[in-house]
Amino acid sequence: MRGAMLYGPRDLRFEERDTPRIIKPTDAIIRNTATCVCGSDLWPYRGIARVPQPTPMGHEYCGIVEEVGSAVTSIKRGQFVIGSFFASDNTCPNCRAGYPSSCQNREIVTTAQAPLLRVPLADGTLVAAAGLPSDDIVPSLLTLSDVMGTGWFAAHAANVKPGNTVAVVGDGAVGLLGVLSAKQMGAERIIAMSRHESRQKLAIEFGATDIVTERGDDGVARINELTDGIGADSVLECVGTQESMMTAIRATRKGGYVGYVGVPHGVELDGEELFFTHVHLHGGPAPVRRFLPELIDLVWNRKINPGKVFDLTLPLAQVAEGYRAMDERRAIKTLLRP
Amino acid sequence: MRGAMLYGPRDLRFEERDTPRIIKPTDAIIRNTATCVCGSDLWPYRGIARVPQPTPMGHEYCGIVEEVGSAVTSIKRGQFVIGSFFASDNTCPNCRAGYPSSCQNREIVTTAQAPLLRVPLADGTLVAAAGLPSDDIVPSLLTLSDVMGTGWFAAHAANVKPGNTVAVVGDGAVGLLGVLSAKQMGAERIIAMSRHESRQKLAIEFGATDIVTERGDDGVARINELTDGIGADSVLECVGTQESMMTAIRATRKGGYVGYVGVPHGVELDGEELFFTHVHLHGGPAPVRRFLPELIDLVWNRKINPGKVFDLTLPLAQVAEGYRAMDERRAIKTLLRP
Repeated sequence: MRGAMLYGPRDLRFEERDTPRIIKPTDAIIRNTATCVCGSDLWPYRGIARVPQPTPMGHEYCGIVEEVGSAVTSIKRGQFVIGSFFASDNTCPNCRAGYPSSCQNREIVTTAQAPLLRVPLADGTLVAAAGLPSDDIVPSLLTLSDVMGTGWFAAHAANVKPGNTVAVVGDGAVGLLGVLSAKQMGAERIIAMSRHESRQKLAIEFGATDIVTERGDDGVARINELTDGIGADSVLECVGTQESMMTAIRATRKGGYVGYVGVPHGVELDGEELFFTHVHLHGGPAPVRRFLPELIDLVWNRKINPGKVFDLTLPLAQVAEGYRAMDERRAIKTLLRP
Repeated sequence: MRGAMLYGPRDLRFEERDTPRIIKPTDAIIRNTATCVCGSDLWPYRGIARVPQPTPMGHEYCGIVEEVGSAVTSIKRGQFVIGSFFASDNTCPNCRAGYPSSCQNREIVTTAQAPLLRVPLADGTLVAAAGLPSDDIVPSLLTLSDVMGTGWFAAHAANVKPGNTVAVVGDGAVGLLGVLSAKQMGAERIIAMSRHESRQKLAIEFGATDIVTERGDDGVARINELTDGIGADSVLECVGTQESMMTAIRATRKGGYVGYVGVPHGVELDGEELFFTHVHLHGGPAPVRRFLPELIDLVWNRKINPGKVFDLTLPLAQVAEGYRAMDERRAIKTLLRP
């Protein structure tokens, strides 16, 4: 089969790869109905994270179970399933505490931009939908594999409650779905930080009530103005840079909550500054598996439509163009159809 | 009157100071029944925090109201009162959110090692006991002004719940009272990190079930051993150094809680490491005022005896010896009687 391979900065090729097969008895093989390009794929694509050798890409997926290993008991051939980018056993103490992305037996899924995918720990990792989905909700179901689960976790970690004032730092797909999540959780006011018209529009469609175009300390000052000098109750950090992290911390009210899901790149926090902000800080790789049953239900019943973040759909064979469009910010997020 | 003045590293003098008087109509003057030396007083005493000029010292106090300003309505002359080291109005949005130590009008109290003390924002800051206390509970009531309120906040911030496994980093008075707080909140297992016999003994008296003498990463390894490789549910950081902070973060289970109250001195947190630990981080200057009514009640009814942390009592005139004894770790905490 052919899949995506990254050779180096901006050198993404669609080429022959080994067809995945069952290796451990707890594995499953999925035929992907859809896969996509993640904002975090752009870190190695842009050369900010180094790729030492040609590397298969992709960690968001949903599709039909093609085959299961001999030890798989709950997941069945023919089911439509979604899983997280971290395979997890769903039984270890960390999983039971709600952190499957810190599962003691976790394995990262990194070969999803392909027609077929091996998923380890299938019983723990995969959640089956109630049946085969109609085509129009496939994009939304696909988002639950990472981007929507991550936005949801950001809102969860930031303790969004009904009536809250929420700010979202970052207008990538995760940030936009953070807006949708905050809205779904009952936030009254949602301040989206964005300077791109198409993203502002989608943020508003997802429930944003205010747009702040300023960045960094100017953005903090603007959020302070909008909140009578108090700051937001909850701030979602969805980027992962020093500036975005400090913006999130400084825009939060005393005793408020920062949920951070942008993978930190070169972020250093000054202990003394953090101490005097009085914020609650929580984040990390989103424990997507924890939220899958609830989020599948919301999509299945058409209560939320996170698939709107895909503003470009391409055949898988054009995956390189999918990366380029996101890198050049022509697309928010690219869906790929094998 | 005579009070404590710090002139420079280890140069603490008991000398004539201006008698405090009402400056603003919201002030009160307290005749201190007792005051004490705080672990944080040792930072400037040791020269780690610089003192640019002779500075009056002390921020823990309880006593009888001697006089109130014309705008003070709830606090009355003759009441026995306790207040926090941060004066707060108790009405601003930060106070109402539970963070009086981030009050929009806060003023720091820094002249308490003296017979008389001016307390700003008296109605917001001070809480009166039900009557005049018997002498045996005065030490415990005094601790509520800072050290016990801070240990309590550490346990609160670390989300201690009945049945939890808790670890406490730091065997100073705050750490020891963190142990007492965790016990009071129902923790099942309390691991105290201490290598000093007298402090280990008090920790056990306060409810510690395990003592870890190792520090840093060895201490983390030991806590991991004691918790089946999972880490503690809640960790209280009660020191404020880089090592103690990293010990706290690394000893916490995935998705667990770190409550940090040691004032950070040169602490830098690596964003990427923090991200993958999945911990919740909360702390800052303890919002002592929030807890005063509840804690006064517990002491008044003899449910807790935090005053046991005072293992040295001196007349105020010997305040310099009180600092020396703590600096040389001959005393855990010094109570001063004016």
